[in-house]
Amino acid sequence: MNNKPGRQTAALGEPVYIKAHAAVVGAKEGEGPLGADFDMVVSDDKMGQDSWDLAEGAFQKTAVELVLKKAHLNNDDIDYVLSGDLQNQCVATHYGLRDTRIPFFGLYGACSTMVESMSLGAVLVSAGLAQHTLCLTSSHFCSAEKQYRNPLEYGGQRTPTAQWTVTGSGAAVLSKYGNGPHITHITTGRILDKGVTDISNMGAAMAPAAIDTLEAHFNDTGRKPDYYDLILTGDLGTVGSDILKELIKKDGYDISRQHNDCGKMMYDIEKQDVHAGASGCGCCATVLCGHILREMEKGTYKRVLVAATGALMNPLTVLQGESIPAIAHAVAIEA
Amino acid sequence: MNNKPGRQTAALGEPVYIKAHAAVVGAKEGEGPLGADFDMVVSDDKMGQDSWDLAEGAFQKTAVELVLKKAHLNNDDIDYVLSGDLQNQCVATHYGLRDTRIPFFGLYGACSTMVESMSLGAVLVSAGLAQHTLCLTSSHFCSAEKQYRNPLEYGGQRTPTAQWTVTGSGAAVLSKYGNGPHITHITTGRILDKGVTDISNMGAAMAPAAIDTLEAHFNDTGRKPDYYDLILTGDLGTVGSDILKELIKKDGYDISRQHNDCGKMMYDIEKQDVHAGASGCGCCATVLCGHILREMEKGTYKRVLVAATGALMNPLTVLQGESIPAIAHAVAIEA
Repeated sequence: MNNKPGRQTAALGEPVYIKAHAAVVGAKEGEGPLGADFDMVVSDDKMGQDSWDLAEGAFQKTAVELVLKKAHLNNDDIDYVLSGDLQNQCVATHYGLRDTRIPFFGLYGACSTMVESMSLGAVLVSAGLAQHTLCLTSSHFCSAEKQYRNPLEYGGQRTPTAQWTVTGSGAAVLSKYGNGPHITHITTGRILDKGVTDISNMGAAMAPAAIDTLEAHFNDTGRKPDYYDLILTGDLGTVGSDILKELIKKDGYDISRQHNDCGKMMYDIEKQDVHAGASGCGCCATVLCGHILREMEKGTYKRVLVAATGALMNPLTVLQGESIPAIAHAVAIEA
Repeated sequence: MNNKPGRQTAALGEPVYIKAHAAVVGAKEGEGPLGADFDMVVSDDKMGQDSWDLAEGAFQKTAVELVLKKAHLNNDDIDYVLSGDLQNQCVATHYGLRDTRIPFFGLYGACSTMVESMSLGAVLVSAGLAQHTLCLTSSHFCSAEKQYRNPLEYGGQRTPTAQWTVTGSGAAVLSKYGNGPHITHITTGRILDKGVTDISNMGAAMAPAAIDTLEAHFNDTGRKPDYYDLILTGDLGTVGSDILKELIKKDGYDISRQHNDCGKMMYDIEKQDVHAGASGCGCCATVLCGHILREMEKGTYKRVLVAATGALMNPLTVLQGESIPAIAHAVAIEA
């Protein structure tokens, strides 16, 4: 039976297997250090579409095709699909998935969406309401820049703390059956606003939420950081990762040995000129579904805690002088 | 145990009770035919805030306070809160709920959000992962107009098929325990795009999704429309409701006796000059949590099927010539 050892953490009564995972990324991501691990690297970031907005949807559509093929399943075999993205009203998701005809739960968790999706997807499987759920998300550098920052043509300079939005989509099929990596716990984040107002420093805005959720996970489960081979945050980048490690150490948790961050792993930060690293819903989704789960299957990692972080403002609230609320959702995966 | 009689419908193994429900609305909604049923009617639609955007968040915050008081619960008693709204990146929700410190799942289902929230909230309770979940959503006429249509100051004329966005928030606490109205089934919608491109005719865009989900519910459960005293759609308004009733009849389901629509019930459509009726996430949320659940407790209705519909475009995709995808989620409630 399911049980809930603490306020924020639920232990799944039966493990929920990650039956298949796939990632499709753009050219810049393909040129990064993880390039060889992605199932598909496309040279045309527009995916043959008329707009960046629709192109992002095409990345989601492609990720679904890739992951279903790897899972040897059809659309009809999937009980629920759970997705969302950064575009206003999550339109990359809605247009990208409109032909799938799979019962759909739309999510908005900003860059925490991949883990939010896997959390609820795992609950549906664990509760016996689904045999297979499809969990995914996406982001696109060009659709994000024009919506959150400046028109691309403007060529605005980026601050040193800015992160580069990943172009790509990662997807996972969760299943009752399997024998590889499986989700054992979900730790659901709470909205936390520490008063950060710099929209070019998402890492600083999101780090406190990562601390809140990781500490909740340790408290709820009684585990220490050493339990995990890898504690992976979503997209804190270099600045946010340093804040996380320093502040969580003050609370008695030294995660410096096991910690890595998808935002630090995606690009060669120096050579690819991405300042504080990568970001976007697609960052955690593609690093997890492209690289990390492959490494778990190879035996590199046995126990991984993934905490994806999201910044919950919009450009308007920041212009209105509001601070940036953030959240982090975590899942524990064992191989 | 839980079981899944059909592709889109899940029967909850144990009933999930609606322990408490509350609604707070603005002045215009308070002057409508359901005015006396709302827990609070505020005369200041700005709720003392500096912007309409934050005002909508204050409606959510107030709805949470009202419903927790009625449920005799504190924030700490709630295992999960599930919410979302129409603002870009769902900021009404994030700012409105940022002080609650309740584990949070962010949703985007446009005007289907209330039922999406109750569906996943019920799954969490039914799966034994939560004793209490808090399900809510909101909308605000002023934040919606400026974002989706025109600045209020512009005073643009509205087409006859246009609907009026409800200002308000409705919330429900779902619980393992209780003895009143309870959720027995959830029927999860699929994205459906029938090619409608008129952003001033949401009813027409959403009616096919309502048909898709209602027919799935009947097919999956073997029930006929007569099983229900009331089949309530979210916010199709007058135009969409007529389309729904006519087209679903052609498929063999006559729902004309039991059907009503929150968008038709909220305002006195003639006197309050709202053209085709009400809309917005807050429409289904406040009509359900203010009026319908009260009527169920009084015995007026014993079996209600609520199907909330959502239009999944954004203003940009419509300007780009795209059609409007839609979705409908349903829950069956019995008293």
